[in-house]
Amino acid sequence: MKSIDVCISPDLLHLYKLEEKIVVVVDILRATSCMTTAFANGVQSIIPVASLEECMEYKNKGFLAAAEREGKTAEGFDLGNSPFSYMDSSFKGKTIVVTTTNGTLAITKSRAATLVMIGSFLNKTAIIKYLAKQERHVLVLCSGWRGSFNMEDTLFAGSLVSGLEGVYRHESDSALMAKRIYESARYNMMQYLEDSTHFKRLARLNNYKDIEFCLTEDLYDILIAEKDGALVKL
Amino acid sequence: MKSIDVCISPDLLHLYKLEEKIVVVVDILRATSCMTTAFANGVQSIIPVASLEECMEYKNKGFLAAAEREGKTAEGFDLGNSPFSYMDSSFKGKTIVVTTTNGTLAITKSRAATLVMIGSFLNKTAIIKYLAKQERHVLVLCSGWRGSFNMEDTLFAGSLVSGLEGVYRHESDSALMAKRIYESARYNMMQYLEDSTHFKRLARLNNYKDIEFCLTEDLYDILIAEKDGALVKL
Repeated sequence: MKSIDVCISPDLLHLYKLEEKIVVVVDILRATSCMTTAFANGVQSIIPVASLEECMEYKNKGFLAAAEREGKTAEGFDLGNSPFSYMDSSFKGKTIVVTTTNGTLAITKSRAATLVMIGSFLNKTAIIKYLAKQERHVLVLCSGWRGSFNMEDTLFAGSLVSGLEGVYRHESDSALMAKRIYESARYNMMQYLEDSTHFKRLARLNNYKDIEFCLTEDLYDILIAEKDGALVKL
Repeated sequence: MKSIDVCISPDLLHLYKLEEKIVVVVDILRATSCMTTAFANGVQSIIPVASLEECMEYKNKGFLAAAEREGKTAEGFDLGNSPFSYMDSSFKGKTIVVTTTNGTLAITKSRAATLVMIGSFLNKTAIIKYLAKQERHVLVLCSGWRGSFNMEDTLFAGSLVSGLEGVYRHESDSALMAKRIYESARYNMMQYLEDSTHFKRLARLNNYKDIEFCLTEDLYDILIAEKDGALVKL
């Protein structure tokens, strides 16, 4: 049987083999939720870059560029990391270049995989249905916060382990833990996350509505994957 | 207020400052449970070493030497990693040299801390009472399995976070997760761990009684800490 595993931090990625696998990169608050929202609203492609400098170079060439650091829009950029800012009809058909504190780094670190997908609660069931039909092992990579474990990404990883139970076997303790915390939190995720660090960080910055939106399950029936360095609809 | 944090793998230790802190090293199945049992049964000191070679050197000099790799007693050694083998009255007053797959490495990695303690369920409340009176920040370091997250060490870490609530603040998501899984598992830890990897690994090797023993809370009222490279009773 195919297997699913969960890597709870990019700093533990050296423990996993990526070759021949599907990697689902997760940064619930808010990079991968934003990306999903952007594609659902007609964006054509997203180029994830690791550094602010790289992002600025693209901006200077005329690209739409989004940059977030420490939960805020980085200086010199118009677009940040709120999903609502991607609900702009003028972005239809456009390419956006994005850099974020954690999420884009996790994407660039995953390139040895056969397929890199972007995961969020917003398109959770679409991903589960897609993965159920694949023949490869799956690794869910939580972006975390500067290398540390975070709750919301692990909850999402657990929702995939839980949703694929019986189709994918899971053997690691991280997958088991993720599944268990998701199953105890699923009907009350806002409350479950209230004490978590990034929730509090964003709530201080008045991003409460963003959090609520990013925890909404199955708003969009789309799939996003990396192709030749850019993210596109699958 | 003093803070308590949880590092879920030695491979994430670079994210934490150890200076000025008390580090509690945990390897529930079974290194730190064995060490606690050894001291409770009169052992004078334990020298943790990282490699089999180092351990053999000590053995050749006449020391009692215990070595475990992959859950089994390593070749050439008499003592392994079962707590029952440390209930030997002939060990009274002796020094034992120990190397294990994960636990001893976590100890040697923690030496920048002000105080390195050894934690197990067997002396959980003794540790909680001791820490409650200290004025330093605490980091619980889970030994994990070859760098990976493991359930039993994190459960124990959560039992300290839970037991010190109100005395130590906790802010990280790993501490919060550890506390939550402990609080949902505490009255049924054997069952909670049944699906975990190391439980299954040890159960295959017929170490079911060891596991049960290692999950027993508060059997011993002792404290163990590192002093000049050796573990001794505090």
